[in-house]
Order: sequence, then C-alpha cells, then structure tokens
Amino acid sequence: MADEKKLVRMLDALGRVSDETGKLTRTFHSPAMQRANALVGGWMREAGLAVREDAVGNLIGRHPGAKAGAKTLLLGSHLDTVRDAGRFDGPLGVLLPIVALEILKKRGVVLPFAVEVLGFAEEEGVRFASAYLGSEGFTGRLKAKTLALRDSDGVSVGELLGKKFTLPKPAHRRGDLLGYVEVHIEQGPVLEAKGLAVGVVSAIAGQSRFRLTWTGKAGHAGTTPMALRRDALAGAAEFALAAEKLARGTAGLVATVGAMTVSPGAANVIPGQVVHTLDVRHASDVVRRKALLALGRSAAAIASKRGLTVRWQRTQDNGAVACSPDLTARLERSVKAVQGRSLKLVSGAGHDGVVVSQLTPVAMLFVRCRDGLSHHPDEHAAPRDLAVALRVMVDFLERLAHSS
Amino acid sequence: MADEKKLVRMLDALGRVSDETGKLTRTFHSPAMQRANALVGGWMREAGLAVREDAVGNLIGRHPGAKAGAKTLLLGSHLDTVRDAGRFDGPLGVLLPIVALEILKKRGVVLPFAVEVLGFAEEEGVRFASAYLGSEGFTGRLKAKTLALRDSDGVSVGELLGKKFTLPKPAHRRGDLLGYVEVHIEQGPVLEAKGLAVGVVSAIAGQSRFRLTWTGKAGHAGTTPMALRRDALAGAAEFALAAEKLARGTAGLVATVGAMTVSPGAANVIPGQVVHTLDVRHASDVVRRKALLALGRSAAAIASKRGLTVRWQRTQDNGAVACSPDLTARLERSVKAVQGRSLKLVSGAGHDGVVVSQLTPVAMLFVRCRDGLSHHPDEHAAPRDLAVALRVMVDFLERLAHSS
Repeated sequence: MADEKKLVRMLDALGRVSDETGKLTRTFHSPAMQRANALVGGWMREAGLAVREDAVGNLIGRHPGAKAGAKTLLLGSHLDTVRDAGRFDGPLGVLLPIVALEILKKRGVVLPFAVEVLGFAEEEGVRFASAYLGSEGFTGRLKAKTLALRDSDGVSVGELLGKKFTLPKPAHRRGDLLGYVEVHIEQGPVLEAKGLAVGVVSAIAGQSRFRLTWTGKAGHAGTTPMALRRDALAGAAEFALAAEKLARGTAGLVATVGAMTVSPGAANVIPGQVVHTLDVRHASDVVRRKALLALGRSAAAIASKRGLTVRWQRTQDNGAVACSPDLTARLERSVKAVQGRSLKLVSGAGHDGVVVSQLTPVAMLFVRCRDGLSHHPDEHAAPRDLAVALRVMVDFLERLAHSS
Repeated sequence: MADEKKLVRMLDALGRVSDETGKLTRTFHSPAMQRANALVGGWMREAGLAVREDAVGNLIGRHPGAKAGAKTLLLGSHLDTVRDAGRFDGPLGVLLPIVALEILKKRGVVLPFAVEVLGFAEEEGVRFASAYLGSEGFTGRLKAKTLALRDSDGVSVGELLGKKFTLPKPAHRRGDLLGYVEVHIEQGPVLEAKGLAVGVVSAIAGQSRFRLTWTGKAGHAGTTPMALRRDALAGAAEFALAAEKLARGTAGLVATVGAMTVSPGAANVIPGQVVHTLDVRHASDVVRRKALLALGRSAAAIASKRGLTVRWQRTQDNGAVACSPDLTARLERSVKAVQGRSLKLVSGAGHDGVVVSQLTPVAMLFVRCRDGLSHHPDEHAAPRDLAVALRVMVDFLERLAHSS
C-alpha cells in the first residue's frame, strides 16, 4: 500500500526540519517550527484543506462539511518536539489524518461533518518549561501569567506572540464540535508486549509529582556505628522500595523515583540529606490519591523509625482525563475491524487531549513503537503498524460519516 | 591545671597557621606546613627536644634516653590537615606529647628510654590524593611511583622533595624501637555516647571500598507498567538496605553507601543506571571478607531477580591493623588509673599508625570529640578531656619508665 509509504516519507521529511544540526529539535515559535508549519501547511493544501495559523501559531487545516452548519471533528497532535527527538511523537497525529483525508477523497467518500487537522504549536514544554501552549491557545485556556514566562535567552511568550496578541477565545463553541481524536505512538511497551499494532486509550492518567527531602545526620563512615546512624539515603532507599511495592500491588498504578541527589556525597561520609523525585500516575484520581496517602504514611513511618525528617513538595498535579465513551467505542470498532482485536490502554503520558478535553470529548489511538522508546532519535513505529493506524482512521471516519 | 590550658593555646595557635584565609588548610609541603613545622619545632626546643626535619619534611623532636643505647619510643601524629579542617585531627597527637614531656621534666622524672615526638608531614591525602606520605617516608615505605604523583597544579611529589631526594630508608631499626603511641580525637560518637573522655584503640579497621554500577533500562515513568521495568535505582536501593542489614547484624561491621549518581536522572524517566560507592570496615579482615562475599551474593541475587546487571570495581582495600597487646594494655592501665574505667574501641578511620605498624608495634589513645564531628571547623575536644588525655600520657610514660 502506497499510503503508509507516503506517510513515512512525510514523517522523514518533517523529521529533517530542525533547529539543531544533526539532531531533531523544534521548539515553540523557533525558525524550524515556522518551516515545519510551512511544510505541513503545503501538504494540507495538497489534501484540499483550507490552511490557517491561529494567534499562538497552531497550524489548522480545515475540510468543510458537506452539510451547511455541520459540526466539526478535530484530528491532530503537536508539531514541536523535545530536544534530540524522534520523528513520531506529535507529527504522526498531524500527518496521518492528512493522508487519511486524501484516501477518502480519492475514494470519493463525502464527509457530512467538517474536519480540522490541528498541528499544535507547543506540547512538550521545552522552551518555556510549560507544556500545552498550543492546545491552551486553541481552547482559550492560555493564561496571562503564561505570557510572562521567559526562555533561557530571556525572551517571554508574550514577546514571541507580538504586541497585538490578546489571549484567544476558544476556536470553537463546544456545541459545534464532534470531538477530538489524536493518533500518537504509545511511548511505552504494552502494545509491543501484546503483539498489537494499535490500541485504544481509555483514559489519560492523572499524575502527581513531588520532591522529597530526607534529612538525617552526616557522619564518618568508618567511625559511626550502625546503631548511631541517621542515614538519609537508607531512608530514601526504603521509601523508593515501598513506592515500588505499592505500585506493583495496585493495578494500573505506576510510581517512579527518577532523580536523586545524595549529600554530602562522599564514599566515606554517611549521607546527611537526600533529595529525590516521586512520580505517581493512575487512570483513576481516587486510586492515585489513595496511593499518595499510603505513601505519605509510609514515608512518615520510615522517617520516624530512622530518626530522619522527610519533607514533601508538590511539583505537579494533573487530574486524570477519561476518554469519550462514544468516540472511543467507535475507534475500538474500527480497530477490531482492521486488526481483528482491540486493546484498551491507559496513557501514562500527557497529551494535547488533556487540554482539548476541556472543550470537547477526546479519544486517542495508540500506535506500537519499538522497545517502547520515545523522546529519542531511535524512536520508531514500523510502516506496517502505520498502515494499520491509517486504515483504522479511514474506517473510523467512514463509519462516522455513515452514522452522521 | 595549667597544662591543658597550655595545650589548648598551642592547638589554637597552630590552628591559625593556614594556607587559606578564614579557614584551616595545611597540605604537604605548603607554605603553612613550613610555618607549622617552625612553630611546633620551637615548642619542641622549649621542651628540651633536639629538633630535625627528615627528607620528606617530617618534624622530629628527640629526647635522648638516660641510658646509652636505650630504645626509642615514638609518639606522634600528623601536622597536615584536610581543607577547612578543625584544630585537633593530627596536631593533638603531636602537641600533647610535647606538653607531657614538659610535665615530666618539671617533675624531675627521668625517662630511661629515648622519645621521639613525630609531626608527620602528610596523612590526609589532600594534595596528591595519596595518604600517609609522611609516615611512609619515616618508615622507609615510600614508593618510587608515589614520587610521580602530581597535584592539581601539575607539581609532582618528587619535584617538591628536590633533586637530591632519594627514597629514604626506615628512620630506625625495628629492634631499636619500643613502639609508637598516637593520641587522636575519636572522630566518632562512641566515647560521647559512653560518657568517657578517653578510650583505647584495639585495632584500626580494615577497609574496602567499591564503586558499584547497576544497569537496567531507562523508560518512560508514565507509560512503562511496573511489571515491565528494569529500574536500576530500585536494585541499588535494595542493595543499600541489604548492606545496612548485614552491618547491623554483624558486631563491629560498618557498611556505607555514601555517594550515588542516578541516570538519566529525570523525574519522569525510570533510572537506567545507578553508580554508587560502598565502604565496608571491620577490625577483623576475616569478618570483612566474609561480609563482602555475602554482599556480592546479595547484589547478584538482586540483579538477577530484577533483570539488572551489577558491576563491582574495587577502589581501596586495606587490611586491619591490630594494636600492640602490650602497649595497649599499658595504655589501658593508665586510662583506668586516671579515668576510673577504660573502653576499647576499634578505629574506623585510618591513622599514621596503619603505616608505622609495619615498623614497630602501635597503640592509640582516643579522645572524645563533640558530636563525633571531625574534618570540620567545629571539630572540638573539651579542655577537661584534653586534661584527662594528658594525665594518661604522663602516667603511661612514668609507668613505662619504672618498668624499663
């Protein structure tokens, strides 16, 4: 099938549009992002879409509905990337719908509803350490304080957007939308482990992040008997294992201690202080909050037993986003039709859908990626899996057209 | 008693002889070390000692024995310091014997044996990352390859010692010595916990240091289910607790994970690699080696269970040094006479005695230090404890004189 080959060529071409030589990096309003919008905008026009850029730089390709006053289905993802990125995270969800619409056009399928293909200008949070600038702009959720954020060169979001920029209203009224569907690589190993090309997302997990600081007492590693120690690292280690145990024993829960700093940090000194991160995610906010309470008790008990203190600082807290039951059921039907069977996954990572869900129901299609690897130049989705995803999208749009 | 006040004044004065303004730092052959040797050499002369410097810069004050051909007792410690040091670690063991000899002189006690008070030129290993340069020189243990070591300015040990320098022979023949006695602050919390001013060292612990590298697989903290993880930090945490448990369950064993580096080290990434130190010490080499074997098995089991690899690199390995039973018993007798009761401690830290023990039997007297704190400007031994140590040294020398 030539269609997925075209998609692969588009992904490859867009993957060469970068702000850095020898690696793929595109950040909010960078020169490469402008070239990316021009390239993808050209492909949108070839597919018969009316192309515009909104006030925050989101690229929007609109296919009008056959009926006057028809509702609009949103399809998309983001065009920015992390530093030294792969080609799929984001672009796949923008380019695949363009190819799908071309296929339908060639087949003479008339969509009664309108479609907008969205290439969000920012999702990764690289330049301003604040994610979702694109979808926040599109949905009218951008906040004045976000405009004051500055990048490492001291340039603010507001300065980038220009003097005439005002905080945008939502691009659509809620009642005018059919929903939002995002295709994305899984960025995890589940589909690969299950031997499936694609799966359907049931929810985007809620996420809490903390910085924990354990304080004990530094001391000489040779002269301080074990019984007289207040070893901050031993406490942190016990906590990390408690978090792992709780997550292993709670279906769908993930808990990660990803970064850790040990002070003073010498071979012959008992650690007096340890600072580490904790990242906890679950599709149910109730389960996540219950887990956090249990971990809080755990940490307090460990600290008390060891003569340590432990301090929690919350650095992030996002509620879970349930996907639309209706759109997800439709997507699942198409997955079963194309792939034989479907699988529902929870997305552990955040996506544009998190923000878009505040405007309209969302659904997501996940595509298997090799080794679950993402945010890396070796990020890879096989052409045959892209072909499956493409056929699912075409099937989904056709069925939606027939049922409209 | 004016004697310990004099000792405190000497410690204070020597504590102001530094290579750095506002903090105490003296390193091998630095300008401050030369001033320190001049200052302490002056005090030695006032106490009636014949003063010389040997080829590596050790300061030696000799009190001749009353009998011709009498054996020599060595008393001493080092005059160099760590960076931003306290005043006691090292200097106490040099200055206290000088004051003790003055007391004996005033009392008219005649020592039949000779005494040499030694101010070693280097023990801390700061300038050349190689410890014991002073005692190695004194005992004829300095190696040619040590001369090639360079400091951070590119100056080698050999260059410092001059063109005429040749590797020295031992300063004494083994049969000419009575032994070596070193007074030192404990640098640990045991005497403080026991409410004792001084204690006697039974052995200097053997010490093994390793760098362990745990390798698993980095992955997305949100999208990788617990069951599919190979978390290097979880493995390292489990090992650190296993080491702690073994040490707690083995009398006299200490095991410390003091430094740890987690990679990639981001809140939302499962750690793919962890590198950490392991420091294990015990007075018995047999117990230490048995513990290391157990820890090796532990690490292998943890790695195997978790799908990790673990690599051990040995960075240090010193055998234990048993103190002389005879000298230690004599020291203990004096401690009991002065303090009422004695306590035997293992020294978890290394001392000049480790090297000197290769030439002659050694004994050590530990003095309580506040909060077990050392290698810090707040390092402190109370004047009343210094008085006890001084009386112990005087008593020890008197008894030795009577029994010679």
